Amino acid sequence: MDNPDQYRPLTPEELGGRLSTVPAIAERIGSDPSQWQVREVGDGNLNLVFIVEGPKGAVIVKQALPYVRLVGDSWPLPLYRAFYENNALVRQAQRDPGAVPEVHHFDEAQALIVMEFLSPHRILRRKLIDGERVDGLGSFLGRFCARTAFRGSELSMKSADKKKDVGLFSGNVEIPAITEALVFTDPYYDAEMNHHTEGLDPVVDGLRGDAKLKARVQHLLMKFASNTETMVHGDLHSGSIMSTDRESKVIDPEFVQYGPMGFDLGMLVANFLMAYFSQPAHRSAAELAGYQDWILSVIDEVFATFEAEFRHLWATERTGMLYPAALFEDQGQSSEAACLALLAEIRAEAYGFCGIEMHRRTLSLAHNADFEDIRDTDLKRRLEARNLAMGAELVHTSEALGSPERLLDLARRFNAKDIP
Amino acid sequence: MDNPDQYRPLTPEELGGRLSTVPAIAERIGSDPSQWQVREVGDGNLNLVFIVEGPKGAVIVKQALPYVRLVGDSWPLPLYRAFYENNALVRQAQRDPGAVPEVHHFDEAQALIVMEFLSPHRILRRKLIDGERVDGLGSFLGRFCARTAFRGSELSMKSADKKKDVGLFSGNVEIPAITEALVFTDPYYDAEMNHHTEGLDPVVDGLRGDAKLKARVQHLLMKFASNTETMVHGDLHSGSIMSTDRESKVIDPEFVQYGPMGFDLGMLVANFLMAYFSQPAHRSAAELAGYQDWILSVIDEVFATFEAEFRHLWATERTGMLYPAALFEDQGQSSEAACLALLAEIRAEAYGFCGIEMHRRTLSLAHNADFEDIRDTDLKRRLEARNLAMGAELVHTSEALGSPERLLDLARRFNAKDIP
Repeated sequence: MDNPDQYRPLTPEELGGRLSTVPAIAERIGSDPSQWQVREVGDGNLNLVFIVEGPKGAVIVKQALPYVRLVGDSWPLPLYRAFYENNALVRQAQRDPGAVPEVHHFDEAQALIVMEFLSPHRILRRKLIDGERVDGLGSFLGRFCARTAFRGSELSMKSADKKKDVGLFSGNVEIPAITEALVFTDPYYDAEMNHHTEGLDPVVDGLRGDAKLKARVQHLLMKFASNTETMVHGDLHSGSIMSTDRESKVIDPEFVQYGPMGFDLGMLVANFLMAYFSQPAHRSAAELAGYQDWILSVIDEVFATFEAEFRHLWATERTGMLYPAALFEDQGQSSEAACLALLAEIRAEAYGFCGIEMHRRTLSLAHNADFEDIRDTDLKRRLEARNLAMGAELVHTSEALGSPERLLDLARRFNAKDIP
Repeated sequence: MDNPDQYRPLTPEELGGRLSTVPAIAERIGSDPSQWQVREVGDGNLNLVFIVEGPKGAVIVKQALPYVRLVGDSWPLPLYRAFYENNALVRQAQRDPGAVPEVHHFDEAQALIVMEFLSPHRILRRKLIDGERVDGLGSFLGRFCARTAFRGSELSMKSADKKKDVGLFSGNVEIPAITEALVFTDPYYDAEMNHHTEGLDPVVDGLRGDAKLKARVQHLLMKFASNTETMVHGDLHSGSIMSTDRESKVIDPEFVQYGPMGFDLGMLVANFLMAYFSQPAHRSAAELAGYQDWILSVIDEVFATFEAEFRHLWATERTGMLYPAALFEDQGQSSEAACLALLAEIRAEAYGFCGIEMHRRTLSLAHNADFEDIRDTDLKRRLEARNLAMGAELVHTSEALGSPERLLDLARRFNAKDIP
């Protein structure tokens, strides 16, 4: 290498030389790189991903690429996202210990993170398509969302620390811009990179013709782009979760930003709802109802755990400047009603973000495998139409909807609906 | 001076040497400092303020002090606020040309801003106490609030520029912390620096005993501290406005931060309402009703102009990523309803911030002369009680209140009320 600090995409051959001097890695996999085996396993879209195995164990090496290769041509994307991803992983590990892969080493010049190798974990989206269940999934995810939302906000953090962090993450401009365009705007007009299933036009035209819906979506975009309540994962879908039968981890927070407390929750639930609506294409008649019920039970558990954990943290860790005990408990007054009002607001926002995510995953650039893997185009269209219609209902009624039980009722209703 | 770049509070004698080499100043007042006259005119609380007069004209020199001298002892305050104030003045001048004093020179090392000398302008608060009227005041202030709110947001700005600016201003931590404590929290418990008029205890106890009110206030604090919709002045009261009989300027944006679009509007209106409620102590019976009506007409004009100007900018300058024409006009759909919904939300937030400002100015550390100049303690108490009661009503009903006409009705009702 001419200059070891100059970024370049690394080859499996170069990795040994680069990493063998890092004690944290040697400790985990052995110190002699000649005994390491290195495999590139990523899809090369945004990142190179290597598994490095040695006599004592294995680690994952993730290196950012300076472009996205989603659409034939490449789309430049700053390498600094690895810096933000590393910062996000460190904070998430503090706020919900064990929920994210452990970071062993970060190399800023090479935009490279060495982290815990998760095995035998699989990407949750694939498990949902394959009909696999994960014990404790809903409570793990609800807890993760509650802990990161609460502990990253001024309910918990010192304001000076939180504001400094907002300044740090405000440098991450290009990545949120992707979400702002692809999630909140492109689905609602004829944007260049959009695509959707044949036959969906009437439903799509209905959404794009609904000015009130689009105004509500843009209002949520304003909240997403101008709200620094807490540090959000920013891309918490079932492809950012890896699970075994009984353990889960949240990965890939490169879309980290400060944002609304309900954002991750809404994106997450949307992806479970899409898994739910897509099931008729993936399950036999005998398994379908049972597995769909299980997915809804996971959503229910996500909300129940989120709210229970948030209330627990409110009662035990409310050390920030917001809703201070000086105004409530120290004056002999309960702050429980204030907590419940805030939770109702977070839930309503989550429903809105959820509806939007359901739209963009079938209309905008990045679709998801739950629907994309369906070969029968007509079935795909019918299932996507249910998903789109429920998304619109959520955007329109997010404040009025109320308890998660009503969300599940809506899902059951749209799942039984044939949309022309 | 040993090191000219080392900060120290300057004396009138030193100013000539410091400023005579700056062409922008020489051009305005003359280039020979031996012909200049320098007077220190500030109250020395947070800043030194000098008037520098030469043969060709005069300029104002404002130098930040590293402390606040509000309460006997000093309270350290970072000098970097002059940097933010200068940045704010530059942006406000771009967004509403002529609304703020022109900046001639900024010296970061000395935390010193040289700017336009306003004459024969007087501080608006004093004019309101003295019963003077200012032509066009409401429309000037409504326009200033609308232009700075709209043009500093992602309705207008490129997202990358706006986010970079959020990063820049996020360094201003100590100043917003003053607002967070003194405005949103201290009034509602027995905070150390609080003071209030003798006899007000029953009203104050009522506010502090109202957990629902405090929860609503803290919810607005969360919005204030975690919302980066636009660059706000941050301290837009009648002491931050200078007027002649027909011209006004907005000064002193050292509390600048990114915040909610309705914040400046709410603080401003609160200060007009306090001027209104205090008038019985300052006017003769013959003048009272007429002058109070004039103050209410200014508030009415502030809202009417804010909304008209915001709608005008929405129609003509909506060049940011929010509510893009691609989703509305380009599809043959009006976005007017979306604009009106956003305006209704801004107004509701403004009412809430307004109620809080009315509380803090009679209960927390920094009171205002409208009430403080009243010698008759019992009259003062009765007028402040009206003000506090209306503030509580506004915090409780901000979303439901609706049009500004209903705000004015409320003011008239509380102005006629005797609160025990």
